[in-house]
Amino acid sequence: MSPSKKDEVTVAAYLFKRLYQLGGDFNLTSLDLLEDAGLYWVGNCNELNASYAADGYARIKGISALMTTFGVGELSALNGIAGAYSEHVPVVHIVGMPNSAAQKEGLLLHHTLGNGDFTVYERMSREISQTTAILLDAHSAIKDIDRILRICWTHARPVYIGLPTDMVFKSVPAEGLSTPINLELRPNDEETEGAVVREICELMYSSKNTIILSDACAIRHRVLPELHQLMDRTNLPTFVSPMGKSSVNETHPAFGGVYAGDVSREDVKKRVEEADLVLFVGGLKSDFNSGGFTYRIARRNTIEFHSDHMKIRYSTFPGIQMNHVLKRLLKELDYSKIRSVDKTELINKLPRHERESTSDVITHDYVWPTFGKWFKEKDVIVTETGTANFGILEARFPAEVIHISQVLYGSIGYSVGALQGAALACKENHPERRMVLFVGDGSLQLTVQEIATMIRHGLKPIIFVINNNGYTIERMIHGMNAGYNDITPWKHTKLLEVLGANTHTAKSYQIKTRMELERLLADDKFSSAPDIQLVEIHMPGQDAPRALVKVGEITAQRNAAAGSVIDDDD
Amino acid sequence: MSPSKKDEVTVAAYLFKRLYQLGGDFNLTSLDLLEDAGLYWVGNCNELNASYAADGYARIKGISALMTTFGVGELSALNGIAGAYSEHVPVVHIVGMPNSAAQKEGLLLHHTLGNGDFTVYERMSREISQTTAILLDAHSAIKDIDRILRICWTHARPVYIGLPTDMVFKSVPAEGLSTPINLELRPNDEETEGAVVREICELMYSSKNTIILSDACAIRHRVLPELHQLMDRTNLPTFVSPMGKSSVNETHPAFGGVYAGDVSREDVKKRVEEADLVLFVGGLKSDFNSGGFTYRIARRNTIEFHSDHMKIRYSTFPGIQMNHVLKRLLKELDYSKIRSVDKTELINKLPRHERESTSDVITHDYVWPTFGKWFKEKDVIVTETGTANFGILEARFPAEVIHISQVLYGSIGYSVGALQGAALACKENHPERRMVLFVGDGSLQLTVQEIATMIRHGLKPIIFVINNNGYTIERMIHGMNAGYNDITPWKHTKLLEVLGANTHTAKSYQIKTRMELERLLADDKFSSAPDIQLVEIHMPGQDAPRALVKVGEITAQRNAAAGSVIDDDD
Repeated sequence: MSPSKKDEVTVAAYLFKRLYQLGGDFNLTSLDLLEDAGLYWVGNCNELNASYAADGYARIKGISALMTTFGVGELSALNGIAGAYSEHVPVVHIVGMPNSAAQKEGLLLHHTLGNGDFTVYERMSREISQTTAILLDAHSAIKDIDRILRICWTHARPVYIGLPTDMVFKSVPAEGLSTPINLELRPNDEETEGAVVREICELMYSSKNTIILSDACAIRHRVLPELHQLMDRTNLPTFVSPMGKSSVNETHPAFGGVYAGDVSREDVKKRVEEADLVLFVGGLKSDFNSGGFTYRIARRNTIEFHSDHMKIRYSTFPGIQMNHVLKRLLKELDYSKIRSVDKTELINKLPRHERESTSDVITHDYVWPTFGKWFKEKDVIVTETGTANFGILEARFPAEVIHISQVLYGSIGYSVGALQGAALACKENHPERRMVLFVGDGSLQLTVQEIATMIRHGLKPIIFVINNNGYTIERMIHGMNAGYNDITPWKHTKLLEVLGANTHTAKSYQIKTRMELERLLADDKFSSAPDIQLVEIHMPGQDAPRALVKVGEITAQRNAAAGSVIDDDD
Repeated sequence: MSPSKKDEVTVAAYLFKRLYQLGGDFNLTSLDLLEDAGLYWVGNCNELNASYAADGYARIKGISALMTTFGVGELSALNGIAGAYSEHVPVVHIVGMPNSAAQKEGLLLHHTLGNGDFTVYERMSREISQTTAILLDAHSAIKDIDRILRICWTHARPVYIGLPTDMVFKSVPAEGLSTPINLELRPNDEETEGAVVREICELMYSSKNTIILSDACAIRHRVLPELHQLMDRTNLPTFVSPMGKSSVNETHPAFGGVYAGDVSREDVKKRVEEADLVLFVGGLKSDFNSGGFTYRIARRNTIEFHSDHMKIRYSTFPGIQMNHVLKRLLKELDYSKIRSVDKTELINKLPRHERESTSDVITHDYVWPTFGKWFKEKDVIVTETGTANFGILEARFPAEVIHISQVLYGSIGYSVGALQGAALACKENHPERRMVLFVGDGSLQLTVQEIATMIRHGLKPIIFVINNNGYTIERMIHGMNAGYNDITPWKHTKLLEVLGANTHTAKSYQIKTRMELERLLADDKFSSAPDIQLVEIHMPGQDAPRALVKVGEITAQRNAAAGSVIDDDD
């Protein structure tokens, strides 16, 4: 399996080595050559779960790879890859294909559509990839690999590489491996960039009340170091969108809260909408990320920082990338001219807490601030598309928390796979990071088997299963009591055992009251996450987080109006 | 929700009513209107499973429908739909989409790629559908629906219907519903058909040794009644391919066995390859269906019957459909001129049986003939892509058995979803049909949650889980001892309980010896399938069915040769 000459490697070895150079170990699913390249095999239970895991892994490590087989494997992964595309996550999808001779002959192989078409699946992937290629020629393979991986990284979007079996062991020169792939963004047009930065400076100097609003693409396009510096050095009040949550330190004195238009808490909404200048970094104004399109920030007061363009008030600057702009802004800004904001205006309170109420029922109003207090620095918190994604907005995070969710794409079941990938990414270099998942009983059913993968790899997440007897988020949208929002009740407390966990150390809990929950959260052993743990929390089926209720109201109002444009498809 | 005028219905009601007319009840997954149309809601655990279930349902009922949501839902179903396309199964994929106004405005809605493109997912489905449409106009919707459903049925392939939310309740005239959709195949060109039938007759009259070979498309394109008549009236020796298994009555005196080229049993191979005329009905010569492309039937001795063309020796007749040809052949054939075959030449023995061996280990050689004797008339037998698909070839079926598998497309995990759909299809009108699944422990992990759906619907399959500690079929192909063919061991005997089964009636068994197995199979209560039952059978990890070993050898030989064209991608 090793190449005949010392200065040669196989195409597969080249590809795997490049992946290793980009991100350390990888969430890959194939082949004997992996270990030679410093990678390891994960072995997810199915390809959709593997694609979610690759997404979660990339959100920790910066990039990831996923290997599936032709047709039957790759198509099962498409939904996860589409989610990565939608949410700007760089995932390399490698597909093991039949060998090139069989492709040329159009053989009626298994996994085909029976029509001799070997590019049909690649065409499907093209729609949800930044670029795709099938490596049919060893000579061009090296260049293709480097080009595709560079595109994946710089665009922060999925790419697709078809790897025919006969190409795996073809020899190619190894020397390219000694030069790292160039991951630098292309430079901005120098003059335009200068003008943009000067204009931003001037606007900031003349503003009496600037705020920063951080959104998804600030994370995905890697400007958090610059953003944090800007926050530290200016002390400007800084807010996050739902998708931007965890992008800044929420214990920072300048942190203001979560802004989502009319879905924001009143104090946050007031503070953001009163600003006379908004530095809106990495904005992604999707329906659920913008309170149902209810941002009330005037364009004349807004500077938008995007990965591939800038917008200053009414002007657009195509091709001017925020990464360079922010770096230069940090250098050129005269910080003494930034108007300091009265700190007392900043709201930094936890939301209303029902702990003092006489009820012992675990409601959303109660539970999220409670978790907020339990979270530790550096926790990785994964929330499912559903009540958890909205509820988590009410929990203030400690420093250095990483929050993973899928607010834009919103594929139910994502969180379980994403947790597995994220936990694996943290296992080696960040064992201090505790992995916490919030998933509904309905959502869990889509991807439950991935818990077995966590068990096999010795991962130690704490999995909170919100048992509210069905699809509550769907009930809120349509069909509160409809049968199609019911699910089969499972015995969650036996799930770990069935999926192969060590019953001595893996623990399961069933929690029905506030007192039980608080006792559990106060238990140091539980909180130290010594092994995988599953906590089933019983909550009323028709209760929902404040933000979700509010989004529901806004959607209903819109639907009642003539336009009716955000009528939900679910 | 009901239409304002009596002679009008909503677009959704029209669609659902048409589906009801085509196939009775349906494997649908959505909306309040279903019940009004006589349909019911299934509620699979995820969309991939639902697509497998729709495939299994259609194989029983003739057609099925599957409803998913935009993006996140439909993409998860693509692999199952591609399988239905590959294997000629008519499945109607209905996708609930955002309303047409939102689409026109290109809103940044959840479930999108964030780029305002609302046709991207439909474009992906086009590649694996016979036709697709998004119903954006109520007036044309009726015609579109009728046209698409007709195409689905006559081509026996999946179709895609995008249904924007605002279209669901738009009114359309109801009168079309009183005229059934025309499902007749177009007529053949009369003259050509006549010439084809005459030529077939002449060849049959002059042949001394004609055989019939029945393959997948005989089932999928609905010529079994004609095929059975031909078999009955001519008494010609009749063989089946692996994908054609269960297409003819295996207890019929003319039944000869399973032909798969060099993978066939010696006696079958000899008998088929000695024939001087082969009536090859619905042929689909894929790798695993043809013993790795080792058919040894001369073209000059072959008449191929296909859904959209005929081949007689060296001549092709495009557009001449076998359905009409077979009907006419049955009428015009002078049966007295058909050479009768010496029955004693026909081989109809069960394969070598190891029951007499001293071993108590449950091997493949032993287990499949053992199951063959246990099967009952009308059983529906679902086998997974893996050892079960090959092993089942060694089991002779009783009359009227239906066998469901996916030999061409071969998506692992398919069988669990397909069983659920098939069991639902049989539940109302064929409760006498026992549902039996053979799935490996590795394959089960991909789609395990669908057992919960079976439980919720009160389905009563017998699920045999072959516990051979990983992916045996993959071991046979590559990596006999490789870690990537390992899986996490599960506690299968507690699975039904965790997934919500009634522990009083749902039974689980663990079987490690031949004696235990035989005792269980002899138990009338067990065999009467009173509730869902799961039987874990322990088998050696490196044992495999004869046919699989043989295919492996053939593949290895080919790979050693220069061409190396069927090197496997798995």
